[in-house]
Amino acid sequence: MPPVVTLLTDFGLADPFVGIMKGVILGQVPKARLVDLTHLVPPQQILAGALQLRSAVSFFPAGTVHLAVVDPGVGSSRRALVVETPSAFLVGPDNGLLAPAAELLGVRRMFAIEARERMRQPVSSTFHGRDVFAPVAAYLAAGGAADAVGPRRESMTSLPLPVPRAESGSLLGEVIHVDGFGNLVTNLEHAQLRGFPARGLSVSIAGVRLASVSPSYSAVPEGAAVAVIGSWGFLEIAVRNGSAAAAFPAGVGTPVTVSREAEAS
Amino acid sequence: MPPVVTLLTDFGLADPFVGIMKGVILGQVPKARLVDLTHLVPPQQILAGALQLRSAVSFFPAGTVHLAVVDPGVGSSRRALVVETPSAFLVGPDNGLLAPAAELLGVRRMFAIEARERMRQPVSSTFHGRDVFAPVAAYLAAGGAADAVGPRRESMTSLPLPVPRAESGSLLGEVIHVDGFGNLVTNLEHAQLRGFPARGLSVSIAGVRLASVSPSYSAVPEGAAVAVIGSWGFLEIAVRNGSAAAAFPAGVGTPVTVSREAEAS
Amino acid sequence: MPPVVTLLTDFGLADPFVGIMKGVILGQVPKARLVDLTHLVPPQQILAGALQLRSAVSFFPAGTVHLAVVDPGVGSSRRALVVETPSAFLVGPDNGLLAPAAELLGVRRMFAIEARERMRQPVSSTFHGRDVFAPVAAYLAAGGAADAVGPRRESMTSLPLPVPRAESGSLLGEVIHVDGFGNLVTNLEHAQLRGFPARGLSVSIAGVRLASVSPSYSAVPEGAAVAVIGSWGFLEIAVRNGSAAAAFPAGVGTPVTVSREAEAS
Repeated sequence: MPPVVTLLTDFGLADPFVGIMKGVILGQVPKARLVDLTHLVPPQQILAGALQLRSAVSFFPAGTVHLAVVDPGVGSSRRALVVETPSAFLVGPDNGLLAPAAELLGVRRMFAIEARERMRQPVSSTFHGRDVFAPVAAYLAAGGAADAVGPRRESMTSLPLPVPRAESGSLLGEVIHVDGFGNLVTNLEHAQLRGFPARGLSVSIAGVRLASVSPSYSAVPEGAAVAVIGSWGFLEIAVRNGSAAAAFPAGVGTPVTVSREAEAS
Repeated sequence: MPPVVTLLTDFGLADPFVGIMKGVILGQVPKARLVDLTHLVPPQQILAGALQLRSAVSFFPAGTVHLAVVDPGVGSSRRALVVETPSAFLVGPDNGLLAPAAELLGVRRMFAIEARERMRQPVSSTFHGRDVFAPVAAYLAAGGAADAVGPRRESMTSLPLPVPRAESGSLLGEVIHVDGFGNLVTNLEHAQLRGFPARGLSVSIAGVRLASVSPSYSAVPEGAAVAVIGSWGFLEIAVRNGSAAAAFPAGVGTPVTVSREAEAS
Repeated sequence: MPPVVTLLTDFGLADPFVGIMKGVILGQVPKARLVDLTHLVPPQQILAGALQLRSAVSFFPAGTVHLAVVDPGVGSSRRALVVETPSAFLVGPDNGLLAPAAELLGVRRMFAIEARERMRQPVSSTFHGRDVFAPVAAYLAAGGAADAVGPRRESMTSLPLPVPRAESGSLLGEVIHVDGFGNLVTNLEHAQLRGFPARGLSVSIAGVRLASVSPSYSAVPEGAAVAVIGSWGFLEIAVRNGSAAAAFPAGVGTPVTVSREAEAS
């Protein structure tokens, strides 16, 4: 079974940088199957990239190598990391980018990338995607041993992801991401809403109260706002066939409250 | 021969949704070759997506599976469809998106996607691309039988594509698409112009008369307008090394007339 | 080892034209591995495409076929070209697009594409990417002989790339490209700076003097300007975690001077 390597970066699509990483990978593992997650992570927005990576890793075959580069600290002393999970490898800078995906999949072992023989020589100080992360991802995709990339690590840089709070029967969360459709993605996960009957709760954001969590976007008329458990695996506020980001005075950080209906208003 | 699966969506490139569908496909058919047609179909513009799909399907190897998702009705009762043609499978929502490509290739059989064992479980109501269409496309790419996805259908939702009219020796059509170069693509096909000698006809749009259908963009000077049978397989109005959409007060719906030169003016 | 074919065009991502070329290639060479370099070359900007191609070709496995189409002269009498180098094939229009990459890799032989049996029939006059370049790239990727595409050529169209000048101990170059991060890429190559000790020189652009060539972007604080040998292999002026193109009144053609520090100011 040919190994799968996914790529997620903030390199954009106007330059050949992503293609260059793929050239390096195919030079080492000609059979690798390469899948772009996205290269339009807003420049150096580690949190956005981390959420996008987390949202994707569950849907790939066992053994997939996920290569992620959103790396404002390239050339500094920030560490480069391999995270081994039961189902996948994560490869990227140790700046929090890999943390939410690692937490979701479960961490088995972590290694700092330090073995020079795993890197492309000479290693530049501006393009570790090409010289460090792509060669290591290829090495793992080819079946290489994770412990041959460098010394074991016991911890990684985490991300200050806001944690929802429960307060007098309500759940207080916030918007953590605005996706390409303008959906307002919150930090409230499906599991956290289990205590609440779907029909018996309301969602409040920016002064607006939505009377329920709906099963799908099409539960409401065109142009109407709707709260759903969306493709990100989180509660999101959307506008059917429109953009919630345009319709609401809301963005990353806007508070979102989930209450039992009686308690709302 | 590894099977080819193409993907066309309105998901954009900023989120990992397309990559997620590819992960699902590769999990089922590791050898599948994945080709993006475009993911920048304007959100929920079924007609634009349908024309783009139609323009591409003839150029793929026999047996290719074309997966298309422009799906304003996801989560509603709109049907999901597999269209079997002599050279390819089309997979997507039954909302007209597949109709022009199906008509071009010829329909052999159609099936509603209903067999739960062909889908990814649990099926969400927001992301059928991942849970319904990708698994079915992978199943077909792996050689699965089309009649195992669900019951046979005799009809599909069609698109209200404008039909050109012949009137006193002229052909009356209209612009149906503006492509990324700003070319104004009409509904007048090459075959329909056969009665007209290439040099002996004129093309009128937005009050401007072009004296002939040219063999190529470079038949006119830089910046000049030109009517050609372009890459879309339709008569299009272009500006050499420029944008006809910017140069003409025209867009989707603008009438276009093809006349014998004597009859024009 | 499956052959690699890269694609670089100015076709954009909104239309299925790139996907169509891939369909043609996979129809001929099902095992080919396809890698996008970029399809966002500014429309018909041959120089930008040529620099992007040049920056990528060194990082692909031996035998890779690089297919490039930025082709304002499609349908005119401009020639179509195959360039055989020791490590790769270059396929595209003979308008200068291939010249910098060919010079970098070294030219072994060149051939004009003229053999009709290598092309897709009928050959349109608007889409040689599909009808001429993709079939020829596929033919070469399948192991076909370069001399079977058409007659040998001894010269190709070159690009009027500005050449740096040495003047009283300084190097005078200019900005030749602005990349997607807003980095100002100059025509000064790493090798040309060898006479200058990295710490002992200054870089001047648009009235601003940078006191050294830094080893990496992170050598300066956030928001500060920095001169580095960047991912393009050229000296570039960047702003750490920002855009030099936004910070400087500079663009393609802006002069850049490298001096020994004592001589600057």
